[in-house]
Amino acid sequence: MTEPLVAIVAGSKSDEELIDEASSTLSELGIPHEKRIISAHRTPNRAMEFASTAKARGLKAIIAIAGKAAHLAGVLASKTIIPVIGVPAKTSDLGGMDSLLSTVQMPSGIPVATVAIGKTGAKNAALLAAQILALSDESLSQRYESFRMGLSEKVEQDDREFSES
Amino acid sequence: MTEPLVAIVAGSKSDEELIDEASSTLSELGIPHEKRIISAHRTPNRAMEFASTAKARGLKAIIAIAGKAAHLAGVLASKTIIPVIGVPAKTSDLGGMDSLLSTVQMPSGIPVATVAIGKTGAKNAALLAAQILALSDESLSQRYESFRMGLSEKVEQDDREFSES
Amino acid sequence: MTEPLVAIVAGSKSDEELIDEASSTLSELGIPHEKRIISAHRTPNRAMEFASTAKARGLKAIIAIAGKAAHLAGVLASKTIIPVIGVPAKTSDLGGMDSLLSTVQMPSGIPVATVAIGKTGAKNAALLAAQILALSDESLSQRYESFRMGLSEKVEQDDREFSES
Amino acid sequence: MTEPLVAIVAGSKSDEELIDEASSTLSELGIPHEKRIISAHRTPNRAMEFASTAKARGLKAIIAIAGKAAHLAGVLASKTIIPVIGVPAKTSDLGGMDSLLSTVQMPSGIPVATVAIGKTGAKNAALLAAQILALSDESLSQRYESFRMGLSEKVEQDDREFSES
Amino acid sequence: MTEPLVAIVAGSKSDEELIDEASSTLSELGIPHEKRIISAHRTPNRAMEFASTAKARGLKAIIAIAGKAAHLAGVLASKTIIPVIGVPAKTSDLGGMDSLLSTVQMPSGIPVATVAIGKTGAKNAALLAAQILALSDESLSQRYESFRMGLSEKVEQDDREFSES
Amino acid sequence: MTEPLVAIVAGSKSDEELIDEASSTLSELGIPHEKRIISAHRTPNRAMEFASTAKARGLKAIIAIAGKAAHLAGVLASKTIIPVIGVPAKTSDLGGMDSLLSTVQMPSGIPVATVAIGKTGAKNAALLAAQILALSDESLSQRYESFRMGLSEKVEQDDREFSES
Amino acid sequence: MTEPLVAIVAGSKSDEELIDEASSTLSELGIPHEKRIISAHRTPNRAMEFASTAKARGLKAIIAIAGKAAHLAGVLASKTIIPVIGVPAKTSDLGGMDSLLSTVQMPSGIPVATVAIGKTGAKNAALLAAQILALSDESLSQRYESFRMGLSEKVEQDDREFSES
Amino acid sequence: MTEPLVAIVAGSKSDEELIDEASSTLSELGIPHEKRIISAHRTPNRAMEFASTAKARGLKAIIAIAGKAAHLAGVLASKTIIPVIGVPAKTSDLGGMDSLLSTVQMPSGIPVATVAIGKTGAKNAALLAAQILALSDESLSQRYESFRMGLSEKVEQDDREFSES
Repeated sequence: MTEPLVAIVAGSKSDEELIDEASSTLSELGIPHEKRIISAHRTPNRAMEFASTAKARGLKAIIAIAGKAAHLAGVLASKTIIPVIGVPAKTSDLGGMDSLLSTVQMPSGIPVATVAIGKTGAKNAALLAAQILALSDESLSQRYESFRMGLSEKVEQDDREFSES
Repeated sequence: MTEPLVAIVAGSKSDEELIDEASSTLSELGIPHEKRIISAHRTPNRAMEFASTAKARGLKAIIAIAGKAAHLAGVLASKTIIPVIGVPAKTSDLGGMDSLLSTVQMPSGIPVATVAIGKTGAKNAALLAAQILALSDESLSQRYESFRMGLSEKVEQDDREFSES
Repeated sequence: MTEPLVAIVAGSKSDEELIDEASSTLSELGIPHEKRIISAHRTPNRAMEFASTAKARGLKAIIAIAGKAAHLAGVLASKTIIPVIGVPAKTSDLGGMDSLLSTVQMPSGIPVATVAIGKTGAKNAALLAAQILALSDESLSQRYESFRMGLSEKVEQDDREFSES
Repeated sequence: MTEPLVAIVAGSKSDEELIDEASSTLSELGIPHEKRIISAHRTPNRAMEFASTAKARGLKAIIAIAGKAAHLAGVLASKTIIPVIGVPAKTSDLGGMDSLLSTVQMPSGIPVATVAIGKTGAKNAALLAAQILALSDESLSQRYESFRMGLSEKVEQDDREFSES
Repeated sequence: MTEPLVAIVAGSKSDEELIDEASSTLSELGIPHEKRIISAHRTPNRAMEFASTAKARGLKAIIAIAGKAAHLAGVLASKTIIPVIGVPAKTSDLGGMDSLLSTVQMPSGIPVATVAIGKTGAKNAALLAAQILALSDESLSQRYESFRMGLSEKVEQDDREFSES
Repeated sequence: MTEPLVAIVAGSKSDEELIDEASSTLSELGIPHEKRIISAHRTPNRAMEFASTAKARGLKAIIAIAGKAAHLAGVLASKTIIPVIGVPAKTSDLGGMDSLLSTVQMPSGIPVATVAIGKTGAKNAALLAAQILALSDESLSQRYESFRMGLSEKVEQDDREFSES
Repeated sequence: MTEPLVAIVAGSKSDEELIDEASSTLSELGIPHEKRIISAHRTPNRAMEFASTAKARGLKAIIAIAGKAAHLAGVLASKTIIPVIGVPAKTSDLGGMDSLLSTVQMPSGIPVATVAIGKTGAKNAALLAAQILALSDESLSQRYESFRMGLSEKVEQDDREFSES
Repeated sequence: MTEPLVAIVAGSKSDEELIDEASSTLSELGIPHEKRIISAHRTPNRAMEFASTAKARGLKAIIAIAGKAAHLAGVLASKTIIPVIGVPAKTSDLGGMDSLLSTVQMPSGIPVATVAIGKTGAKNAALLAAQILALSDESLSQRYESFRMGLSEKVEQDDREFSES
């Protein structure tokens, strides 16, 4: 079996929809990955250990999904030097503004590559991971260019249908 | 020398004004305490170790001061069961809204007792620590009642001066 | 019958779901508590009297649940020196940002230990009360450590199920 | 000496600039008033007593100035049926958004007539008090109409100077 | 038929629920009032005329309900010296933050007495109008005191039922 | 003298810096214009009359500058069918978020063409007015294309200096 | 067939409801227009080409509808000198605040005429386009005046029905 | 001369401080880079051309710095598949909330790796670029580990000095 290059880590099983969105996007691009539930607050030791061994295990990027005071991405980033991509989950009260600020406003020294709130962000996190991997994987780079072209073509087709209606 | 009952921990030396505000309030109430600089992101191991040994060392409360994506309080709280009081530092861009949400919106299971943004919060964090300690320290309880009375008297005196002006 | 150590006070019967969340968490940890409906604005005398007699009645912490211009926690805190934990209720228009700021931004001298907005906050308020009580109750301290371990185990089990799927 | 018809109450001496703005506006309109420093949190008994005797003392309106988790207006309103006008003070971190929401989002049953944040609000609070008093004071009503006309004339004069420049 | 003392004005028929809330509260207190649909933007002449004749028609207060860039209260206030009470309607996108700021942040010279967003605000606007009228109507003053007492009793009854459960 | 095609209207003389920014931009493009101080709230009649005669006087666009509960643009737009461009002034407490929402969130039927907060918005308002006028003025259209080219060239020159440094 | 004077461009087919709202309003006023789906990010070349040829094709205004980091209006505005009207789409997490700020806060030199968030904005964008076209089309100007009168009459009729109820 | 691996692109010369922060961090890590001023709105062709040739020129990452309606990062990302890191500049009115949302809330398909607002973000953008490059550059990977260790040591030294004071 192929070793995973990307890990998708969520703070709670309730983020399953976001995990699936990221996972299916990575699969579509043929990127081997693993899915994990690790909480920065409820399983801090596991979070630390996971991050500190990630590079040695061959992971090239970590996608961290969390909501509210979303510390997961930052905590993982503090223990590894591979890029950590943060996906702020939508929250029922503040819409995800809390998750966003907790993820993106990282203090000096430890960056988190933050993407949009919610499902859009989950998909884009996978695409960002793909862009990073494609820097040293020509085959993936070509698959990614095709994927991009597909996006364009979809919009162009919508445009044709729409402007003719 | 008296062993500290409270630890004031800040994520960076730049939070010195807030540390001093909390420290001088604790001193005023005669509460032995220690002051530490520990970063959740730049010194994660230290943060973990500090928190996991805090209870055994005799600490009864931790005051955690941090700004931006302020994870310090949450990270410490994940490794101890003594109360962690979070002080969101004011930030130059978002005023401290980022620090506040990152501190207060803790997910289910790991609470952080959050107080106001900035210097007011630093003072109130010390007072909250005192209230917690006073539950099992009758002498401190009386000193705290006096402190409270002093607050009232100060306002009443301002009122007299003001209404006569 | 055991005297209550914690009081859960809500500003209105409409906060019943939050009261129940806090109450069941306290019960799970074996902490005797009482449930009250007291409005800072509609029953101000009661609020004042409740708070000013709370310590003498043996209460060790008050959990105050309120929404919108949520003054309940602050009003109670002004009349007692036992810790007051504020739970900002979610609001239908501003999501609870109003409740949060009204609860957490307490002016100098009178702290309120604020937790997250809504149901998560209600649960965490109970846990924070437990952490405070556990400082001088070794048996509760052990029950709380077990509870924490349960949280970790739940996440670890979710992780196993998830990563194998 | 004339008995005061309006009371200007601030939660702290630091709000002096706002008190002065309201006071000078009331004086300009010839409205007798008193100035007080009363804190909802540090002098709760005084706040309660002040409000509950306000009507009997002949007061027709209370202007309450406070910042952060600004409970003063709401606390006073809970103990009187004369109109309470709330002025949210500007805050150094959140700009006064905290003061505004804590003042205006009063729960059902106890209204606070809220005006703008800061100095503009302090002036407008005095004008609102004047409008309320003018309902049953024809002489004040005429003075107020003149004041309004003055406002118009000032703008018209600025317009002339400006459009000719 | 009794002449109206209060006018409830809304910018659009879609605010009907808020109008009804204010109206039923005024009726409960026996205050004669009228209900109007006047748009500051779509019927500006009407708005101006309505406000400029309001005082002469015997109106003592105007309750203005509007959403989004809610100019209605301000526009009416610019043409009358009787108190204008602004109710910011909840909006589907920004929750009513837009309505609130457009209503409360009135520039120097023309105050609007702003209450909470939505239905709570509509009820409280009626109560504020009652408080203003009660200043010179002893009978209403007594009815209002009774209403207040009813509020307290309701909370106290909820408290009894709740604490016994 | 040439009749003005654009009017710059501000709610207060304190907005002079914004008026000057818009005015100098219009002058740079050779567009005759007038500058006015008219307050929607303090001089409502003037505002109404100004707007209702604007089209007949030959004006093609109105730039309305106002802060806080910024009703000026909306009030003018309610009395004319020429385009009204709204410039939200920066405010000292909320940064201009109040001005922005009060200007842009116009209800259905009466649009205001809103630009950025503050000085940037004042310049862009003038440019937008120029774009509108250029639709039927070929000479202005060419001047505007040159202006645009100048913007590009400035950035390109900065780029050269910068990348060589 | 009549050549379009206005183009309605949306970033995605999911904005169909907003496109229809703008389109039906333009149709009601007899303004020929076209509907397009063009994404600033997924079809950047198309966006550039569309905008750079818009003026030559006879378009007088572009209505650009987009959500989240809504760059469409700005990107189109950078390649044309005809007015671009931006409609910020409502978003499920932040309510459209992200779309609004991304559309309205355009930097110096390239204005976007921004209207309200969502469906109200879509309708008002069409009306603003009509106001711009009406500057040089007397017949449309008259149709627009009638439309405005219709708005007034609708409110007046609602008022009659309402005040009689 | 070494070919640049990273490009730092800012929308305006006024962002010079942020460019320098990113540049000096890259230099410290020995990463060859170029600095550019390219505006998404004022020089759209250049932006498009720069991005579409970036990969072929050997660039591995682009750091895009922009404020207000910050479209630069998104526009560049639409024309390349190498990772684009967005730095939201602080703004004088909204603190950078506008820049942040315009950068991070990218729609589905085109991610931008967003970091914190302002100078902290500029430094972290450089570090994120380094982390990406280090995935396939063992020497840089080691330099980066050293840099990280330096961060830890600095905090530990501050801690020693502080706790001894």
